[in-house]
Amino acid sequence: MARDPKYDILFEPIQFGPKTMKNRFYQVPHCNGAGSERPGTQAAFRGTKAEGGWGGICTEACSIDYEADTAPSVLASLWDEGDIINLRHLCDSLHKWDALAGVELWHMGSAVANLDTRTAPSSPTQSTSDWSIGTYSHEPDEAEIIELQEMYVESAKRAVQCGFDIVYVYGSHGVLPVQFLSRFYNKRTDKYGGSFENRARFWLETIEKVKEAVGHECAIAVRISVDQIMGPEGVQAEDDGIGFIELATRRGLVDLWDVNVSTFSEWGEDAGPSRFYKANHQAPFTRHVKSVAKVPVINVGRFTSPDDMVHVINSGQADIIGGARPSISDPFLPKKVEEGRLEDIRECIGCNICVSRWERGAPLVCTQNPVANEEYRRGWHPEEFDQVEDAGSVLVVGAGPAGSECARVLGRRGYDVHLVEAEAEIGGHVRDVMRYPGMAEWSRITSYRQAQLDKLGNVEVHTNARLDAEAVLTYGADKVVLCTGSRWAADGFSHITMAGIPGIDAAAPHFATPDQVMAGKDIGERVVILDADGYFTGVSMAEMLADQGKQVSIVTQFADAAPLMEYTLEAPNLHRMMHEKGIAQYGGTWVEECEPGNVVKVRLFNLSRDGYKRTVEPRPGEPVRKAGSETTTIDADSVILVTARLSNNALYRSLWERRERWAEEEIAGIYQAGDCYAPRLTGDAIFDGHRIAREFESKNPQRPLPYRRERMIWGRDEEPLAAN
Amino acid sequence: MARDPKYDILFEPIQFGPKTMKNRFYQVPHCNGAGSERPGTQAAFRGTKAEGGWGGICTEACSIDYEADTAPSVLASLWDEGDIINLRHLCDSLHKWDALAGVELWHMGSAVANLDTRTAPSSPTQSTSDWSIGTYSHEPDEAEIIELQEMYVESAKRAVQCGFDIVYVYGSHGVLPVQFLSRFYNKRTDKYGGSFENRARFWLETIEKVKEAVGHECAIAVRISVDQIMGPEGVQAEDDGIGFIELATRRGLVDLWDVNVSTFSEWGEDAGPSRFYKANHQAPFTRHVKSVAKVPVINVGRFTSPDDMVHVINSGQADIIGGARPSISDPFLPKKVEEGRLEDIRECIGCNICVSRWERGAPLVCTQNPVANEEYRRGWHPEEFDQVEDAGSVLVVGAGPAGSECARVLGRRGYDVHLVEAEAEIGGHVRDVMRYPGMAEWSRITSYRQAQLDKLGNVEVHTNARLDAEAVLTYGADKVVLCTGSRWAADGFSHITMAGIPGIDAAAPHFATPDQVMAGKDIGERVVILDADGYFTGVSMAEMLADQGKQVSIVTQFADAAPLMEYTLEAPNLHRMMHEKGIAQYGGTWVEECEPGNVVKVRLFNLSRDGYKRTVEPRPGEPVRKAGSETTTIDADSVILVTARLSNNALYRSLWERRERWAEEEIAGIYQAGDCYAPRLTGDAIFDGHRIAREFESKNPQRPLPYRRERMIWGRDEEPLAAN
Repeated sequence: MARDPKYDILFEPIQFGPKTMKNRFYQVPHCNGAGSERPGTQAAFRGTKAEGGWGGICTEACSIDYEADTAPSVLASLWDEGDIINLRHLCDSLHKWDALAGVELWHMGSAVANLDTRTAPSSPTQSTSDWSIGTYSHEPDEAEIIELQEMYVESAKRAVQCGFDIVYVYGSHGVLPVQFLSRFYNKRTDKYGGSFENRARFWLETIEKVKEAVGHECAIAVRISVDQIMGPEGVQAEDDGIGFIELATRRGLVDLWDVNVSTFSEWGEDAGPSRFYKANHQAPFTRHVKSVAKVPVINVGRFTSPDDMVHVINSGQADIIGGARPSISDPFLPKKVEEGRLEDIRECIGCNICVSRWERGAPLVCTQNPVANEEYRRGWHPEEFDQVEDAGSVLVVGAGPAGSECARVLGRRGYDVHLVEAEAEIGGHVRDVMRYPGMAEWSRITSYRQAQLDKLGNVEVHTNARLDAEAVLTYGADKVVLCTGSRWAADGFSHITMAGIPGIDAAAPHFATPDQVMAGKDIGERVVILDADGYFTGVSMAEMLADQGKQVSIVTQFADAAPLMEYTLEAPNLHRMMHEKGIAQYGGTWVEECEPGNVVKVRLFNLSRDGYKRTVEPRPGEPVRKAGSETTTIDADSVILVTARLSNNALYRSLWERRERWAEEEIAGIYQAGDCYAPRLTGDAIFDGHRIAREFESKNPQRPLPYRRERMIWGRDEEPLAAN
Repeated sequence: MARDPKYDILFEPIQFGPKTMKNRFYQVPHCNGAGSERPGTQAAFRGTKAEGGWGGICTEACSIDYEADTAPSVLASLWDEGDIINLRHLCDSLHKWDALAGVELWHMGSAVANLDTRTAPSSPTQSTSDWSIGTYSHEPDEAEIIELQEMYVESAKRAVQCGFDIVYVYGSHGVLPVQFLSRFYNKRTDKYGGSFENRARFWLETIEKVKEAVGHECAIAVRISVDQIMGPEGVQAEDDGIGFIELATRRGLVDLWDVNVSTFSEWGEDAGPSRFYKANHQAPFTRHVKSVAKVPVINVGRFTSPDDMVHVINSGQADIIGGARPSISDPFLPKKVEEGRLEDIRECIGCNICVSRWERGAPLVCTQNPVANEEYRRGWHPEEFDQVEDAGSVLVVGAGPAGSECARVLGRRGYDVHLVEAEAEIGGHVRDVMRYPGMAEWSRITSYRQAQLDKLGNVEVHTNARLDAEAVLTYGADKVVLCTGSRWAADGFSHITMAGIPGIDAAAPHFATPDQVMAGKDIGERVVILDADGYFTGVSMAEMLADQGKQVSIVTQFADAAPLMEYTLEAPNLHRMMHEKGIAQYGGTWVEECEPGNVVKVRLFNLSRDGYKRTVEPRPGEPVRKAGSETTTIDADSVILVTARLSNNALYRSLWERRERWAEEEIAGIYQAGDCYAPRLTGDAIFDGHRIAREFESKNPQRPLPYRRERMIWGRDEEPLAAN
């Protein structure tokens, strides 16, 4: 199919500085954990997007000097020849598909810890980091400021050697240039502080020097937090934000504006999770920039719909559609628009698990796209699948995220697949999740897979069919994959005590698992949610019930509810939501027992506030160190058990007991994927289903095949020490 | 000098299994962040210890399978040929000095997150991790248990290929084998759970299989937490701990016992910080093991004194002196004992900054030994220094940690050094720090450097001499290094507001900086400590004043006071101490203003409990999300300001203003090291002083020289994808 002409505007070339981009799809800088350290992963991950039609593709933030090191979270760097070689490989992988390559030159000011380089960072005014603990910055004098600018220039020259087309002087999210611009961070009294002109000086001079050095070969881009969303203390669009753009525009310094908002501590105002922000939530800011800029403006806002993109351009909001998360979720989004295959677009759900991995120092993963970051190390392609000759038949039991993904991939690979689901619809636990407040976009997990399964003639989907072991054994399949999911523990079991909680039984009326709540179990007015899980279920349950007018408290062993949502950037607005909706929180506590009755008495003990988890056993001659547990009692009409998930593995165990029958029934293997093997994040469950289908012919698909690792191998790759 | 004969026992060889170790100095397994990923760093770091006389040296924990991955914290692994090559290089670097090489085969059970490999971990009973968030384990059936044991065997065989002499089946700290042994983690009802014999089965079988596979070539070691220090819930020495050792001893399975205590969440009971545990604190447990074991027993307990070590062996407590932290602090400890140079031993201070880096996912550093982990990448040797011909004269101003280290290294390199200190003694801020409760061992920072400086004929130390700019300029030095340290802000300045706190002035009687408190300023009965710093100063001040009978509260923006001490393993006992001594804590809060008077009213605002740091500015069409700040007032007689440190850079600035004089006075350069450049952790300040002295002839010693980086370079080191 050809593309719909209404999308033509998205495929019009656009010029900025000395470069022309072939279309309007632009992957703005975002981390993937590869940096300059894992060149194969880096090039394959972003090269796949180039293949998929993105016209401009950038690195993550790229450090200009030892002063800027986020270890253990990996960013790119342009410090030396090794970096040039590795990032040249990235540029080559993008140019192969006629995409432009951009690099985001970066210095994080006072915010970095520099745990690897051990170099103190510079910032306009000396202070501790608001991102890490125990680091103070150095306040440079004017001579040192020139050295800092020289670092930008030198790394820009290295960027040219790599082959980059676009060089950023990055100033969003509270990095060094915007620390100079911001009244909050900059308390200097010399020519780099005080008035707006003085605060803008560092950044403008830096852009000017970089442009002078490389502007004839590269487009000069600036990523700017046009509003730090911290009120008059920080940069606001209406004063310093737009003011800076006007100043730079008057001086003709910038070829391309990449616009967003926020600062470090509230980065979720930019990479807005879908729970709080829908697509194009930064529109007012970009529109404002576009009204004063004389060069192309890039918009961001988690766009997955080509209609929204067309509207952005036609309404004069921006010229180029920036995307980070949508490009991770579907590297082939532009190509699918071009080929008129909109139903094949794998839309980002805005869960921010991608972001969470960088925040935790680990490589990026994506809930929707299990191939993300696996292109090189496992040799996977998101749209291409090894075909299996004489593929046999496979029974996949359970059509949740893991099962439907497994069936999709086995289908694409040529297997004859039967996907059998006990419930009336596919989707598994996502059918509940999408009903939580703000989580409707999670339904895209199911809708994408449903659409893909519908297209595959060799995949049959059967719903309302619950199979027992005998039915599986006699189904007639050559191989079986069980994807039977998980359930919430009914007795308050958690890892805190590795036991159920005395008095709790979800069969009784005053207790309910999330599964039971979603199935309609009656919930009383005063609700206590026991959350040992730490992700979205407890707080979503809380919000849903608070919205029904109930009085809700969360009891958790963590200091704050849902600590995983610190990493997904959902935490700040989550805590504000809890405050607004009157959801109380008992942090650092857990439940000793529940005393049932008309009202459940929940006895809490304190885990860490003024004591610690346990009293330490004394050793001879040492003092006893006491845990200072205090006990409180709260009354509840209903107690909701978000304490632990348990694999639904009864079917597998039953089949295992009958394993002598497998050969009799000509079943070559029975495997488990997703939650029934171990309860997992949804994205990891999808990955499980995907992986087992990719490696289905291996000796034991239950265990992953080895993958390529990128690290120095001794004797092959030693570097000499630099001379003085 | 030769060694004192009383230490002869420490140099007697000892046999275990098929191996003989040349002496009794044994580096027990500990992390350094190199693993199998940075082979140069790994081999040089541990090879330096071999050169320094340690007779046995081990890797950190070494993963046997994808199931066990602590990313971003780096451990070793023995998964493939690349691992074999890289760890063979380590073994070669140890054998070169006749040291035995040990490898600690490791599977972490349910505790790992596997953020890199994405593989679900196995554990005896399915549960979430008590070390990470959002991970659940898989509960293996008996067939899968055999697969797990096979993983141990396969990696043991790879260890033989590397050249390892000692193969561990590691079971301390709550890893997989001890999860099977522990009633707390193991709720199985098959032959691997229930009775003691059943719980011991997994570990014993695994040891047996590993011994059968490699026991003819390697000694089989077991590291065991003989007591998990969690009471009857876990493994206790008097039952399962000693019981396991007796069982394995009866079956002759183990050649070497490496004994410690604790579990993950209380790992500080093993690697005990000096604040809470002095040397040999695990003695009762080791002695117990020694009484039942028939093979050599390794002790740990942060031994730095050879007299203590001799006592351990002669008293029958253990046969071999294990050390992790002492071997980091001084890789040449054995050699110094052997050569009768006890005053040269650089003793560990037990600060656990080494541990903190692994906990944060970053490479190890050491407060006392700035060369640790720099042996390869910067080419440094802890005991050898490049000699400079025709070395000139250097004035080092300030004899704190950075200055005294800088002077020591410059002296060793042949410079004519004048170290000039304003106070009566050297030591800088350590003179205060060592007076805090439990921190006396920090004095070793100064005493080591004092002893070394005393030995250097070319270093003059002048105390009670405060230099101004003019005095520096006319001192007659060719080069100057300023190490003038830092001070605590006097106005409540912190990064939280990037401003002082209204009403606060340390010149007034009701307010005091830590510097003023230690200098004897009067402190009232009700004390409020404002701690935005997050490391030891605030809580140490609190303990010291509570010990004086004062009523102390800590106000901090962090959820709990001193979060950095979570990483140093000090937090659990710190919080118990705070509980015992009645120190109150206002977490997630900060101070709006102080209203002076006879009693200071401290107005607190809530930062994150029920709202979040700031109200987010609404964008058109979006709801306002309110920060739920509440204000409380507390009364105080004294408010102590642990809010931010500021560089003492007035001298440098004054010299900078006179920079035209530098050439006139024939000064080739004036540099800053340590806190006067940027306030740092003490170890980083020492590193700064050391580095600048090592690189003193470079073009600009203020900026670090490039160092070797260990990562894959594209085109040189690509691995093929494994076949199915």
